[in-house]
Amino acid sequence: MAEKKVNVAIVGASGYSGEELVRLLLEHPHVNLSVLTSRQYAGQTMTSVFPRFAGYNHAADLKFSSPSIDVLSEKADVVFLALPHGIAAEFAVPLANKGVTVIDLSADFRINDAAIYKEFYGNEHPEPQWLTKAVYGLPEIHRAAIANATLIASPGCYPTSILLPTIPLIKKGLIDTNHIIANSMSGVSGAGRNASLPFLYVECNESLRPYGVPKHRHLSEIEQEMGIANGAPVTIEFTPHLVPVSRGILTTLYLKPPVDHSNDFTHWIKSVTECLEDFYNDETFVRITGNKRLPDTKNVTNTNTIEIGWASDARTQRLRIFSAEDNLVKGASGQAIQSFNIKFGFEESIGLKI
Amino acid sequence: MAEKKVNVAIVGASGYSGEELVRLLLEHPHVNLSVLTSRQYAGQTMTSVFPRFAGYNHAADLKFSSPSIDVLSEKADVVFLALPHGIAAEFAVPLANKGVTVIDLSADFRINDAAIYKEFYGNEHPEPQWLTKAVYGLPEIHRAAIANATLIASPGCYPTSILLPTIPLIKKGLIDTNHIIANSMSGVSGAGRNASLPFLYVECNESLRPYGVPKHRHLSEIEQEMGIANGAPVTIEFTPHLVPVSRGILTTLYLKPPVDHSNDFTHWIKSVTECLEDFYNDETFVRITGNKRLPDTKNVTNTNTIEIGWASDARTQRLRIFSAEDNLVKGASGQAIQSFNIKFGFEESIGLKI
Amino acid sequence: MAEKKVNVAIVGASGYSGEELVRLLLEHPHVNLSVLTSRQYAGQTMTSVFPRFAGYNHAADLKFSSPSIDVLSEKADVVFLALPHGIAAEFAVPLANKGVTVIDLSADFRINDAAIYKEFYGNEHPEPQWLTKAVYGLPEIHRAAIANATLIASPGCYPTSILLPTIPLIKKGLIDTNHIIANSMSGVSGAGRNASLPFLYVECNESLRPYGVPKHRHLSEIEQEMGIANGAPVTIEFTPHLVPVSRGILTTLYLKPPVDHSNDFTHWIKSVTECLEDFYNDETFVRITGNKRLPDTKNVTNTNTIEIGWASDARTQRLRIFSAEDNLVKGASGQAIQSFNIKFGFEESIGLKI
Amino acid sequence: MAEKKVNVAIVGASGYSGEELVRLLLEHPHVNLSVLTSRQYAGQTMTSVFPRFAGYNHAADLKFSSPSIDVLSEKADVVFLALPHGIAAEFAVPLANKGVTVIDLSADFRINDAAIYKEFYGNEHPEPQWLTKAVYGLPEIHRAAIANATLIASPGCYPTSILLPTIPLIKKGLIDTNHIIANSMSGVSGAGRNASLPFLYVECNESLRPYGVPKHRHLSEIEQEMGIANGAPVTIEFTPHLVPVSRGILTTLYLKPPVDHSNDFTHWIKSVTECLEDFYNDETFVRITGNKRLPDTKNVTNTNTIEIGWASDARTQRLRIFSAEDNLVKGASGQAIQSFNIKFGFEESIGLKI
Repeated sequence: MAEKKVNVAIVGASGYSGEELVRLLLEHPHVNLSVLTSRQYAGQTMTSVFPRFAGYNHAADLKFSSPSIDVLSEKADVVFLALPHGIAAEFAVPLANKGVTVIDLSADFRINDAAIYKEFYGNEHPEPQWLTKAVYGLPEIHRAAIANATLIASPGCYPTSILLPTIPLIKKGLIDTNHIIANSMSGVSGAGRNASLPFLYVECNESLRPYGVPKHRHLSEIEQEMGIANGAPVTIEFTPHLVPVSRGILTTLYLKPPVDHSNDFTHWIKSVTECLEDFYNDETFVRITGNKRLPDTKNVTNTNTIEIGWASDARTQRLRIFSAEDNLVKGASGQAIQSFNIKFGFEESIGLKI
Repeated sequence: MAEKKVNVAIVGASGYSGEELVRLLLEHPHVNLSVLTSRQYAGQTMTSVFPRFAGYNHAADLKFSSPSIDVLSEKADVVFLALPHGIAAEFAVPLANKGVTVIDLSADFRINDAAIYKEFYGNEHPEPQWLTKAVYGLPEIHRAAIANATLIASPGCYPTSILLPTIPLIKKGLIDTNHIIANSMSGVSGAGRNASLPFLYVECNESLRPYGVPKHRHLSEIEQEMGIANGAPVTIEFTPHLVPVSRGILTTLYLKPPVDHSNDFTHWIKSVTECLEDFYNDETFVRITGNKRLPDTKNVTNTNTIEIGWASDARTQRLRIFSAEDNLVKGASGQAIQSFNIKFGFEESIGLKI
Repeated sequence: MAEKKVNVAIVGASGYSGEELVRLLLEHPHVNLSVLTSRQYAGQTMTSVFPRFAGYNHAADLKFSSPSIDVLSEKADVVFLALPHGIAAEFAVPLANKGVTVIDLSADFRINDAAIYKEFYGNEHPEPQWLTKAVYGLPEIHRAAIANATLIASPGCYPTSILLPTIPLIKKGLIDTNHIIANSMSGVSGAGRNASLPFLYVECNESLRPYGVPKHRHLSEIEQEMGIANGAPVTIEFTPHLVPVSRGILTTLYLKPPVDHSNDFTHWIKSVTECLEDFYNDETFVRITGNKRLPDTKNVTNTNTIEIGWASDARTQRLRIFSAEDNLVKGASGQAIQSFNIKFGFEESIGLKI
Repeated sequence: MAEKKVNVAIVGASGYSGEELVRLLLEHPHVNLSVLTSRQYAGQTMTSVFPRFAGYNHAADLKFSSPSIDVLSEKADVVFLALPHGIAAEFAVPLANKGVTVIDLSADFRINDAAIYKEFYGNEHPEPQWLTKAVYGLPEIHRAAIANATLIASPGCYPTSILLPTIPLIKKGLIDTNHIIANSMSGVSGAGRNASLPFLYVECNESLRPYGVPKHRHLSEIEQEMGIANGAPVTIEFTPHLVPVSRGILTTLYLKPPVDHSNDFTHWIKSVTECLEDFYNDETFVRITGNKRLPDTKNVTNTNTIEIGWASDARTQRLRIFSAEDNLVKGASGQAIQSFNIKFGFEESIGLKI
């Protein structure tokens, strides 16, 4: 298999997620980057836009082009879409219909239910029949489905940081699903590589601000996946905040025991601990720090690892779980490559830093 | 009164809170800075340590000295203590016993109950008889008592950001006091001006990290003041996080209605809105942004203002309240000066930026 | 004079220089802010765009309007122009022709010579007859002319940091004018409050970059003013760099003695020291740190002070002079207000922090 | 050779350079990390101090120990010393005497001349006989000597950024060696992982400051290597500045033509261009951006690449050359590994990012 190379295209390769895909895939031993598209930089060499990649093999040969379904389907076995939501669907469906594997980093196919999509994104979904065919690309939860998917909807950065710590507990009935609070802080790259006043250096430096409450779009996929794990709908509180780092998401989850665990706090904490440790014991990219050390984004930036740790509070009989990830890697491009590895039968960690 | 000058000493004037006191008091029209102490810099001129103050009137005359009770009581009408907890008490009590007004920025006299003090700070309180005589210096809540106090225990930075949004609601029974969650992010100046590895530039830059859970020392004063407002003990969840800004605290509070308000969400939100707007209507340093705009620390740094805004969530029937303050001003030195103005009969905003 | 109020308009009040003018003039005791214009925010209240000013007296009454010569000339005694170069002239000349004092923060009238203007700015100057009537608003150098000017061309941020340390030495023939090198670093606010990719948080954070070489536009005014001081043309090397701070310029000047001072290095350094100390002895906003301490932008941000210090190098027989200023205050809006105070007969430091 | 593994020890592995060596060597395919020492953390596991390395193969087995010559010489074929200057010599000489290859990242053996060492470092060199035996580990300049060295003195971060752009030009007589000015900005990691007040987050954030003038210790090795290239002593001006980034050095060099090139500026620039392009044509880690694009540290952080670009100035008939590197990689640990690869016959780029 060492010789096998997959032809890979990246559509929207000049945004932050696209750039991160380029960075990671240039070093992936089984990838041949065949097409990079960028409307903004079409015609320019990739290294003129991203000089830091100049030293990579073959980087000098790469040029941005305008995206074309025909060219993509001809030259690529798999297409990563790093496009704004709404636009991704225009590429995903025709490509998937031609049998090309599509790994979509946008939100376009993350929601199973067209009504929920409309509620959160404001418009009718253009291709609702694909909503159920697409697989939500959270490898630790949907690995088997990813291996067989044609269209993989790679999760959002916030959802990844919230779902991985909670889904195992929800599945086992270990937390009260009427009381899930997710408080997240994100670095500015989460806002994308778009010239926009609120994300200028001077506007973000020395600024701490909440936004997108009470109904950030990521809530829709978070609650969907929690609902699947729960076997019944889940509604949560989620608050994103913008803080002055380039990369990283730190999520703090406030949780309490379900009724049938509320009499023995120590036992509950033990069950939670065992559940998470067992669930993630064999996972390459989940580092359980438990109650030994609290997560810190500094430990995970530029890697595909998510740290998960917790602190029980005997005073309130409640639990806080913390997760730290790189929003552009485990929260976006790294995770998409993890799904790619699964789908194409490569070792899951190939091309990714742990 | 324009002519009246109060002789003011600052003990521990070379830390961040001390420096901020110097900055503000140098421009206070009714203050004569008579003594600045700093063990570390004793004998040095103030402007050699803080060159940015060189342009202020009389700044050139100021020198750091070693602290002495006799000198302080002789030369100062009021002494601000910007010392580590435990050390402040050594100065506060002898000075207060001599009738000198003491405004203590440490935690030494914030707790009324010696047992609680010991639980959170680990040692017997050295002067328990003063715990009940000291006044908790949160002007918007304890203004009258501050006006008559000899020993003012100025609140901590986190408590200020948490208590101001919640106390009016607790007093009116408008929130469920069994369900108060305070999630806070603080700038690095909160850790003090001490050479310590975790607060080096390289350790903090691009790092987001929780700490001090589940039982940060500030919990003791938060719960005490909430308990007083409630007429019964209150236990909350509080999570501080360190983020890479120099100044600023952003607190996100997760709240729900008490049982008797839980049937009419709209009415509850209306009551909460009116309660906070009424309570702070005449307060100079509280800016209610309501549900119009979310607070941002950028709007309050270098001022004594706290912004308070909120977002109701009809989906969960709950409420989030946000507050933003400068941890060194409203969260420390500015608030201490606000108490000083109250105690000495000056207009409350004199020498402070709104 | 305590009662005298001047009606002041700010055109382009929503950029960073404009915002800084608002901040400073709201507290100026002799200013009545009568008109604030902003094409982008016309019709909105000032405090909705800049919430941090909500606490100032009268701030709530201020609204942004679209700029109109008629309204400006009717309602304002003085108009500050915080506009991009090229646009400022459209307002400056009609207003000045009507006798309104104009303080222009753009580059439009800084250059005396229309040919030089065209060389550096690329177009014919629209109002060349005003180039010689306008006064270059560097108070420490042109104070008397400022007092009598109708049109004051307030200097650029880089030029201020370079000219103040060198002009006294050039005037006295104390440096070799064939060998002046100015190496400057600037905070990102210098790029203005414009949505532009290179100034996004993520693009600037952890980036150090030169730009604008070899012929940055500011060179034209730097060399003009040096030439006037020298009595003969001066050509220098100037390199601006962008670094991740919000505010501040640090300039490092590499200088050597003229031929007639090159035999006695010690004596030369003594002459340089005396020259700068004498020249700035009575200046409120120039803090000479000499060879005692090197300047640091941290000591001057948010003030109108420029720090100037130096280090002589016996090994190379040369001299480095360093200056530190806040690019938005002494480098822009503060200095413009300093000129305003001069022109209107107020104490020069009124409304400015030292 | 794919199978060959070298036993490697890192002494002082818990500082920033040491941590960077750990990071890079954990992934080096021909390295077996056999000993990590740290007085501060002796007895602790490596991953408890640096959690981000937990995912690497074998990382879990590594523990910090106290350094011992016997253990080091027994267990390691090569020892990297990431120690403060003065202390490194205590390990370097006994190890080298036993035939262990020593790659010393400190300044202890960079200087050939004991008198110069004393002038700049203040004490007699403890092992002067080794000063001439040690090889200055700048691979692009001293590759052959490195291949045969027992003691490699790896260059300082500033010297690397200054010497690589200038040595080829000096060797060819293409610049006036009486007029070399190096203006550098460095990230805070250059100050080391030591708890020290000036390097706290709050002290560095929003601060731009020069330091170490006129005679920073790195001058000694810069001038030594320039002198060797020149065949005669060279004295330069060098100014380091501290700026708020974690990593990166940006150096701006001010240069002029020697007398015999001063009549034809265009030809001189052509010669300089050809000289640098030819010299570095085959070098993996030197990216010549020429006059097409100016270097930016953002393009090189976390890589062993140095970018070198320039701007000629027809007005002044002079030249500016810019270089950008990661101070911890090409400026320290990466370069040390480059020398290791040379010495042990591996491909020079193995284990390093370009």
